Amino acid sequence: MTRTFDIALVGATGSVGEALVQLLEEREFPVANLHLLASGESAGRSLSYKGKNLRVRDLETFDFATVRLVFFAAGSKVTQKYAVLAAAAGCAVIDLASGLPAAQAPRIIPEVNREALAKLTAPYLLTSPSAPGIALATVLAALPEQVGIRRVAVTACLAVSSRGREGVSELARQTAELLNGRAFEPQLFDRQMAFNLLAQVEQTDGDGHAALERQIAAEIKELLALPQLLVAVTCVQVPVFFGDSLSVSLQTESTVDLKQVYAALDTAPALELVELDDYPTAVGDAVGQDVVYVGRVRAGLDDPSELNLWITSDNVRKGAALNAVQIAELLIKHYL
Amino acid sequence: MTRTFDIALVGATGSVGEALVQLLEEREFPVANLHLLASGESAGRSLSYKGKNLRVRDLETFDFATVRLVFFAAGSKVTQKYAVLAAAAGCAVIDLASGLPAAQAPRIIPEVNREALAKLTAPYLLTSPSAPGIALATVLAALPEQVGIRRVAVTACLAVSSRGREGVSELARQTAELLNGRAFEPQLFDRQMAFNLLAQVEQTDGDGHAALERQIAAEIKELLALPQLLVAVTCVQVPVFFGDSLSVSLQTESTVDLKQVYAALDTAPALELVELDDYPTAVGDAVGQDVVYVGRVRAGLDDPSELNLWITSDNVRKGAALNAVQIAELLIKHYL
Repeated sequence: MTRTFDIALVGATGSVGEALVQLLEEREFPVANLHLLASGESAGRSLSYKGKNLRVRDLETFDFATVRLVFFAAGSKVTQKYAVLAAAAGCAVIDLASGLPAAQAPRIIPEVNREALAKLTAPYLLTSPSAPGIALATVLAALPEQVGIRRVAVTACLAVSSRGREGVSELARQTAELLNGRAFEPQLFDRQMAFNLLAQVEQTDGDGHAALERQIAAEIKELLALPQLLVAVTCVQVPVFFGDSLSVSLQTESTVDLKQVYAALDTAPALELVELDDYPTAVGDAVGQDVVYVGRVRAGLDDPSELNLWITSDNVRKGAALNAVQIAELLIKHYL
Repeated sequence: MTRTFDIALVGATGSVGEALVQLLEEREFPVANLHLLASGESAGRSLSYKGKNLRVRDLETFDFATVRLVFFAAGSKVTQKYAVLAAAAGCAVIDLASGLPAAQAPRIIPEVNREALAKLTAPYLLTSPSAPGIALATVLAALPEQVGIRRVAVTACLAVSSRGREGVSELARQTAELLNGRAFEPQLFDRQMAFNLLAQVEQTDGDGHAALERQIAAEIKELLALPQLLVAVTCVQVPVFFGDSLSVSLQTESTVDLKQVYAALDTAPALELVELDDYPTAVGDAVGQDVVYVGRVRAGLDDPSELNLWITSDNVRKGAALNAVQIAELLIKHYL
């Protein structure tokens, strides 16, 4: 008989939370009881799971001692506050919001660094990296080792769903107002998001970097186990509802063997290589899929030790919910 | 008495052509007669210039011997065919479509390399570079020489107006159909452009590069007189009507002196530096302006010899029509 687990999901009413519920069902995760949690005003709504409507309960009053595993898909502050309680109650924790310090909760992508799980000790605290971090690391990890990545420059064009449901509805609202020739006040985003690119996804620090840009750089180094890698990241908010797109330029140790690169990307797990006469898009390819798409794979114009790529990935599913469920699958197999 | 010149404008009915007419008037260019030309079906329309309606005539039957200076704002094939006739008739030619070979028609941005004009001999054939090339070169040329740029990686996010009026109407049409929940067939763009990014602005060559990507790299090297510069370019079509946005990562000879960089960018001609707690956007800043905007100026996360920038520029005005008129102003001053 298969063992089953009591599970809690914090942030159930968000788009990532909803995708998590759907994936637990789709992948037949061995759930005994599923507790959907949210803070304050979102509690009381309900979500469908295996044909039943599960009511979302108030996080504040939940007893973590009743479950074995908790997904945190809420903001980082909620995670920081409640993950401690969950861990103290003996739960394994999977943090999708990077609320926990990396030293305490290692970042895991099962297809990239599952070996990092070998060293785990209780309490089991694990981080599912950011969506652009997952997309980028999945592709870079699939490159042949001979490529020898020295430097990565990435422009990560993030869908508005990276800001949750509010991001989606705000882009829709602004777009409709503009097409109807009506003035509007930007909400959520600090200025017009429709038909515009915003070069800053949050307030930057004194050196001009956004926290997410620093986080992506740290994620890539940890996931690839390349602490000396040089990483430049620019995050841009783009008027796309779902699906992140990354423009990547790599510098390598020596001349890139493109045939070897194509072969490696073509056979890698969780990746779909798109050939040179075509290219992947967020909307047309990535959304709803369990794989990261990579295309426009080409050497430099001037430099044979340069490799350029275009990556698209579903930021909600592949870049968050799916990766977290895959981490949970490994956890219950080896530790719980 | 001011000398005046008979001028022809090929491609008058396009958005760049229309901006050219407007700028000739705004800048009080010494026009005697202005001949608006277009091929076949666009002929017959009219444009307003100095309060009069000028009729657009058929390019096919125009006698270039009647004018002194011709702007080519049509496609590169039209330019290739008719610029030869114009030059043979003794006209100076300014090519906005990069239809002429660079060796024959030097690329000019007056604020960047006006010294290239010193060596001109008749026939006077000059190229106004691509809009992203103008935006990027204007910023890079303004950096202090001590920065010593070794390598440039740029992701150029191009507005749909880079594909002319049809690009603008196609994005509007697709967006309206989607917001109304109706299916549509993509036209002009090879797939859904609304709420999506397309990583390829045209068919790529056997090595995976688009002609425009090669062109931008060549432009930067020529304009900055840095033939050894390493340039990586990815052009992306984005769902923005007007205004290009460029994400740029530079590698430099040594540690970047950020204060010196800020000071240089702040005082450079044709540039507007946006401070670190803010950033420029295509729609909010660049459109309709005669300057290129640069912001998010910051060193690398890991590498003090790295400089990252975000650039926005009006692709129709600053990136095409204005630069061409400024070239013409230099030409009439020194040669005609």
